[in-house]
Amino acid sequence: MAKKAFQDYYAEDVSHCYGCGRFNEHGHQLKSYWDGEETVAHFTPKPYHTAIPGYVYGGLIASLVDCHGTGTASAAATRAQGKKMEDGPLRFVTASLKVDYLRPTPLGPELELRGKVTELKERKVVVQITLYAEGQACAKGEVVAVVMPEGMVR
Amino acid sequence: MAKKAFQDYYAEDVSHCYGCGRFNEHGHQLKSYWDGEETVAHFTPKPYHTAIPGYVYGGLIASLVDCHGTGTASAAATRAQGKKMEDGPLRFVTASLKVDYLRPTPLGPELELRGKVTELKERKVVVQITLYAEGQACAKGEVVAVVMPEGMVR
Repeated sequence: MAKKAFQDYYAEDVSHCYGCGRFNEHGHQLKSYWDGEETVAHFTPKPYHTAIPGYVYGGLIASLVDCHGTGTASAAATRAQGKKMEDGPLRFVTASLKVDYLRPTPLGPELELRGKVTELKERKVVVQITLYAEGQACAKGEVVAVVMPEGMVR
Repeated sequence: MAKKAFQDYYAEDVSHCYGCGRFNEHGHQLKSYWDGEETVAHFTPKPYHTAIPGYVYGGLIASLVDCHGTGTASAAATRAQGKKMEDGPLRFVTASLKVDYLRPTPLGPELELRGKVTELKERKVVVQITLYAEGQACAKGEVVAVVMPEGMVR
């Protein structure tokens, strides 16, 4: 059985995110995992996810950073509470997203996102993310994630 | 004849952006215009551009902010040089993108993005953008746009 990603543990009614929801058939379905104390996700853009031809669209990069950030926040907060993902992780949403584009990201190769938690409070987690293509850092991001507000699920 | 958007003046070889390229049939094809000293763009998300059900995916919001920002930069820089868009605008790319999500953005209504140039140099333009849904500000963004590097077009 394949290892389950953070996002595969989200409750069914909050698993429709375009970036990472397993029930969004149109979306990216990003999958994030622990790799030691870091988190990792991989994604291969489609040929049409282009900015200037030959390079990855910055909005897609922002999207991947966003979802890897909230996924990392969910996993880190759950672990900090001494719980397992199987018990139902907290669902985080993005309060703030920042991406610095270090260099054009080549379109074609698989991208790797690596996340590190730099602040961990009960209801707020900050995650630093670096996006790599062919081993070279192409973008750095910061996600400030907060626990999904009560009553947001309709 | 319909008014042409900033993005409609981009050179053909740099008009494939997933967010705003008129030749990207899979993409958002965002269109930005002057509205006095501000710039404006409208976009209606698809039903699958969801975050938590009922709300717009934050990655899409980041994408729209990104492309409205680079479009605004292009138009403002062209105007500052005393040129017309018909003469071929400078093409900007994003150096840095920041989005603060003020409140969940309802999925369904048309979104409005309004941009203001807050810094204008020859090769760097900073744009502040507010995204509205039903008249309410839902996100604020900042785009640091720089002139596309020479040789980026392959």
